[in-house]
Amino acid sequence: MSTAGQVIRCKAAVAWESGKPLSIEEVEVAPPQKDEVRIKILFTSLCHTDVYFWDAKGQNPMFPRILGHEAGGIVESVGEGVTDLEPGDHVLPIFTGECKECAHCLSEESNMCDLLRINTDRGGMIHDGKSRFSINGKPIYHFLGTSTFSEYTVVHVGQVAKINPEAPLDKVCVLSCGMSTGFGATVNVAKPKKGQSVAIFGLGAVGLAAAEGARVSGASRIIGVDLNPSRFEQAKKFGVTEFVNPKDHDKPVQEVIVEMTGGGVDRSVECTGSIQAMISAFECVHDGWGVAVLVGVPNKDDAFKTHPVNLLNERTLKGTFFGNYKPRTDIPAVVEKYMNQELELDKFITHSVPFSEINKAFELMLAGEGLRCVIRMDA
Amino acid sequence: MSTAGQVIRCKAAVAWESGKPLSIEEVEVAPPQKDEVRIKILFTSLCHTDVYFWDAKGQNPMFPRILGHEAGGIVESVGEGVTDLEPGDHVLPIFTGECKECAHCLSEESNMCDLLRINTDRGGMIHDGKSRFSINGKPIYHFLGTSTFSEYTVVHVGQVAKINPEAPLDKVCVLSCGMSTGFGATVNVAKPKKGQSVAIFGLGAVGLAAAEGARVSGASRIIGVDLNPSRFEQAKKFGVTEFVNPKDHDKPVQEVIVEMTGGGVDRSVECTGSIQAMISAFECVHDGWGVAVLVGVPNKDDAFKTHPVNLLNERTLKGTFFGNYKPRTDIPAVVEKYMNQELELDKFITHSVPFSEINKAFELMLAGEGLRCVIRMDA
Repeated sequence: MSTAGQVIRCKAAVAWESGKPLSIEEVEVAPPQKDEVRIKILFTSLCHTDVYFWDAKGQNPMFPRILGHEAGGIVESVGEGVTDLEPGDHVLPIFTGECKECAHCLSEESNMCDLLRINTDRGGMIHDGKSRFSINGKPIYHFLGTSTFSEYTVVHVGQVAKINPEAPLDKVCVLSCGMSTGFGATVNVAKPKKGQSVAIFGLGAVGLAAAEGARVSGASRIIGVDLNPSRFEQAKKFGVTEFVNPKDHDKPVQEVIVEMTGGGVDRSVECTGSIQAMISAFECVHDGWGVAVLVGVPNKDDAFKTHPVNLLNERTLKGTFFGNYKPRTDIPAVVEKYMNQELELDKFITHSVPFSEINKAFELMLAGEGLRCVIRMDA
Repeated sequence: MSTAGQVIRCKAAVAWESGKPLSIEEVEVAPPQKDEVRIKILFTSLCHTDVYFWDAKGQNPMFPRILGHEAGGIVESVGEGVTDLEPGDHVLPIFTGECKECAHCLSEESNMCDLLRINTDRGGMIHDGKSRFSINGKPIYHFLGTSTFSEYTVVHVGQVAKINPEAPLDKVCVLSCGMSTGFGATVNVAKPKKGQSVAIFGLGAVGLAAAEGARVSGASRIIGVDLNPSRFEQAKKFGVTEFVNPKDHDKPVQEVIVEMTGGGVDRSVECTGSIQAMISAFECVHDGWGVAVLVGVPNKDDAFKTHPVNLLNERTLKGTFFGNYKPRTDIPAVVEKYMNQELELDKFITHSVPFSEINKAFELMLAGEGLRCVIRMDA
């Protein structure tokens, strides 16, 4: 029996207040409205951004809320005006969108859609500002327009990437955010040439995805930088060839890297969000051609600071958002890279839990254990 | 009668001490040694860098010295090992070199030659550390390896661009430094696309050359920024379409430009060296695709400072040196652009004086009058 046009009652993990374990509740999910899609989520994974907004330190708290933004699912029904998706399509919901009409979407270079760019403060849908989730009539806030910690969710069509239906959703779900962010930062923005050296700052999941981008690009040296040496062993699986712990040196890590490489690395990718790491990542690239790419999200009051001669000596500094991928246009091709065994994803998925144990995924991330924990919705 | 292998006695303008008028003296110019070329200078022009090292404020003074680095001339004789130049070749000496063997010269991206990169502290030739200039046996220091304020000079072959002998040296001499620096910053580094908007900070000679690059690239809007409104009238000849004087506004000039352009310019080029202008030039480019290029040389203690989110929103910040041109490989083609009437140079040459009146060129520059004053050596 079709559920299209009906309210669906299903399970969702609700964050009732900051920092408290999520609670699996029965929620009501309204039908998709204009330009919206309702998706049955099969797999979702936990990303630091979920934890950050769950923890809600220094933020305007927005609770109760359904978090979650890395996921894979199947379209259940579509709202008015949706023509390029239909029930049964396999999709990845994405935390940032692509309207295909604004100046950013029309630019070949930008993925920062004016209409659907990430908005962490929005708790409802763009169409009417309202939530599609409720419990006994009381609305539950959305998160990033995705809210994938629910068996069913409603997402704007501009935030949905339609992918190859043969792709295993329990693997490619991690391409919704972190893995694409790191991988794209390297292959789309840093663009190392075959044989070049790349420094990766931060060996968490995003940094290792950036390293995966360097490996796929044929980098000859991949230098991992992290304050936590326990990450070095794992990073070897990701093609990282050398390790530098800034704590092991008396001089700034950029000087250590410049010495190791006879003048600096060809490319660097910063995945920690620490302002000092950003400065080091920039200053460790070679003059004449070095490119540093910033990925990590800084604190509000941080200032990036360097001597301008570091720029005049022909270094380039760039930042990227979601690996410069346009969600609808580009992500299906990244899924194909996985299908062609060009890009490895399995090694990022270190844990898996049933939906009923979603709080365990939070515990693992808070303990710094593993890279990605995939949550199985049907289990 | 050939002068090859002989000491040549000729006139040179000698700077005996900082800030004092140059004195035209008879000097002895030794023959070129290994990998060196002796050039008869026909035209030379005055650049701010000459004035800066003549003024010598806050520097280790190096006097007596023969300044000058923008020039055109003809090879008189070549030293041992020089195979790609011969007497009679028309050349531009360049203040920075290209050895064609180091990592930078072998890189497609860099022009910062390890061997011959600009060195303002060197007063002799690389081969033996000695000067080729003397007066009664007392050596006179070289400047930037070019010292073109002399009827004859000796230059390392790596700092000599061989150009089309039909090119008028009284015009193309300005491509030795300033005009190539500004033009290349736009066409090689900022690379505006046809129809894009470009902001130029500083409407002196280098900034107007950057504007010329924007004009040649088909920019739709060229916004000139300068504290001196008297420069605006002249700048119109260079295709600058709009003007902003930061003094006319209460808010930072980057905010003014963002408002004028509905989000920011597509490209900006900073040609003042003011750290505040550098920050404004970066922060006035559009998110998603904006590229800011720094050209102007800052003070030693300056710090470039911005919020990293300005980068994460997909802006790019780059610096350039000599417009990213490789002196020997690329400058001959820039001369051809002038010959093909693609690039206009005549409008940059606002004054001309005979060699005997070289101090007048300094006076014009110190008074901020005109753009380039060409000094005629044979007059």
